[in-house]
Amino acid sequence: MPSFAIGVDLGGTSLRISAVDEHGTLLEKVTTGTQVSKGRDFVIDEMCSVIESVVAKHKGKGGLLGIGIGVPGIIDLDTGMLYESPNLPGWDHYPVREEIERRLHTKVVLENDANAAALGEKWLGAARDYPSMCMLTLGTGVGGGIVLNERIWHGMTGMAGEVGHMNVEPGGHPCNCGSHGCIEQYASATAIVRMAREALANLRPDSTSILLRDISSDKEFSSRVVYQAAVQGDATAQDIYHKVGHALGITVADLINAFNLNMYVIGGGVASAWEAFAPSMMEEIKKRSFVYRNTGPDAKNNLGPKKTTIVTRALMGTDAGLFGAARLPMLGSEVVEHAH
Amino acid sequence: MPSFAIGVDLGGTSLRISAVDEHGTLLEKVTTGTQVSKGRDFVIDEMCSVIESVVAKHKGKGGLLGIGIGVPGIIDLDTGMLYESPNLPGWDHYPVREEIERRLHTKVVLENDANAAALGEKWLGAARDYPSMCMLTLGTGVGGGIVLNERIWHGMTGMAGEVGHMNVEPGGHPCNCGSHGCIEQYASATAIVRMAREALANLRPDSTSILLRDISSDKEFSSRVVYQAAVQGDATAQDIYHKVGHALGITVADLINAFNLNMYVIGGGVASAWEAFAPSMMEEIKKRSFVYRNTGPDAKNNLGPKKTTIVTRALMGTDAGLFGAARLPMLGSEVVEHAH
Repeated sequence: MPSFAIGVDLGGTSLRISAVDEHGTLLEKVTTGTQVSKGRDFVIDEMCSVIESVVAKHKGKGGLLGIGIGVPGIIDLDTGMLYESPNLPGWDHYPVREEIERRLHTKVVLENDANAAALGEKWLGAARDYPSMCMLTLGTGVGGGIVLNERIWHGMTGMAGEVGHMNVEPGGHPCNCGSHGCIEQYASATAIVRMAREALANLRPDSTSILLRDISSDKEFSSRVVYQAAVQGDATAQDIYHKVGHALGITVADLINAFNLNMYVIGGGVASAWEAFAPSMMEEIKKRSFVYRNTGPDAKNNLGPKKTTIVTRALMGTDAGLFGAARLPMLGSEVVEHAH
Repeated sequence: MPSFAIGVDLGGTSLRISAVDEHGTLLEKVTTGTQVSKGRDFVIDEMCSVIESVVAKHKGKGGLLGIGIGVPGIIDLDTGMLYESPNLPGWDHYPVREEIERRLHTKVVLENDANAAALGEKWLGAARDYPSMCMLTLGTGVGGGIVLNERIWHGMTGMAGEVGHMNVEPGGHPCNCGSHGCIEQYASATAIVRMAREALANLRPDSTSILLRDISSDKEFSSRVVYQAAVQGDATAQDIYHKVGHALGITVADLINAFNLNMYVIGGGVASAWEAFAPSMMEEIKKRSFVYRNTGPDAKNNLGPKKTTIVTRALMGTDAGLFGAARLPMLGSEVVEHAH
């Protein structure tokens, strides 16, 4: 009977809890109605109670390896505290790990949600056959996670993988982080909606762009509406996704040149518009990364599948973070081998 | 008696060979008059003959650990061949490692020269107290080397650390690599001379810029002349170094956001103009990297010296690569621990 772990995806708006065995089989998935806005203590009570009932149900089948929790925000890995999390007000500097370990008497591993998603795609998704990968999660913002030789690369203080704030255009759109022209300002859902509004403001009133129609009929005007317009052939919408691809290409090329990993995975809600931005992205990567030109699938001296740089879309959707979180307590010792 | 290793710095114009013991003490340094232009076989003969005499001289003092060779160009780590080296014509696809091992009956480790320099600064220079660092070498081009947990990070095919081609300005100056606006086009000695010529072409004929005087009197007009003019208060020259600092700041901020390492070291000939570009560089880093703002020396919640991001200049000059090369055969097993 295989052992299993609990994976928790604690989002800004919802709480999801899974039981996953060590082979990656999903035993159970619970999406609670818990609103994170009800506050920290309410959420922790609810989380612990769901975990206890899930564990009780599956305990007979194998040993519990621990609990992994993916959270939006910056985590102090040594203490297991959140020390910056705009989407979880009231959680700052609270000893999340310690508190849950105290209540449930089980090993708890806390991780940034983008890192957990990267680990999920590494374990069971697009990058399952590769030791090292980087994932960009294109959602409301742009998150990133880097896996080197099977493990999340945390860096000195757990802040590694903040690729959403890598530079695309030095004098570009201002970013919440204090910089200008970060990739987050060109490839997030928020950025796509902003670019659509900017484009519409510049359209002539007699323009036939279907975006003009959709933006007024859609109350929650989203990047998906822009995508649908692009698919229907709307030039304004297509141009926006070209910009997304162009910007992403610059960032992915930088990452390829710096890290030389096996695989770069694009995930998050915006990645479902892959067809609309991937051609511009790939064009930009080929132009800007001689490492890619020397190691990509079309490279002259291609060294075989294990030595080929692949840029691809994520396979696991929103489950990546949930499976990745469950993977965390399974990884045990931190000793790994350097690639050679 | 400590063991020792041979370090070789095989440059495009000269050949240097050192004997360094395992504590980092230099036992001997030989700079040969060998001109690399005399061809591969001539250089290998000369290299082997100098190594043999150096080894014979020091053999009584301790065991020989092996030979490390730093070369400009891309290396196939598995086979020990150079597979791209514009500065060493005729060396492509030649089994350098095998040939020297055959002649000298000793373990040989081949490494890219920028990686060797990074390892030197990591072992004995600016980053000697830190497990993970990145070095940018600003010379004719811009090279880079990344050390993660005491070891060079090679990536999938040994091409990691090509930070000289990270993007600063997407529509910027064309680069030999096929992209536009790479950091190499703003922070190399070549770029500084180009920017000086561009600036002078735009100066009014009655301008008092001392660059105008120096550029006509100096046959080998170099970035050093621009630096001296900047030190003497020449506004045109100072403006060029501001541009260098601005561009470097963008790239270093990207690296901090992506890797979250302990230290970023700026080396190479251009780094001797540190005073002229460092203020603009640091300003840009603070603006563009919230990871730096949270972990730099002035961070509000500074976690102590082992958790502080440091950006600094290299300490070892051109010897970094020579010591780093000697370090290579000392590193033995590739097993390392992940930071946590």
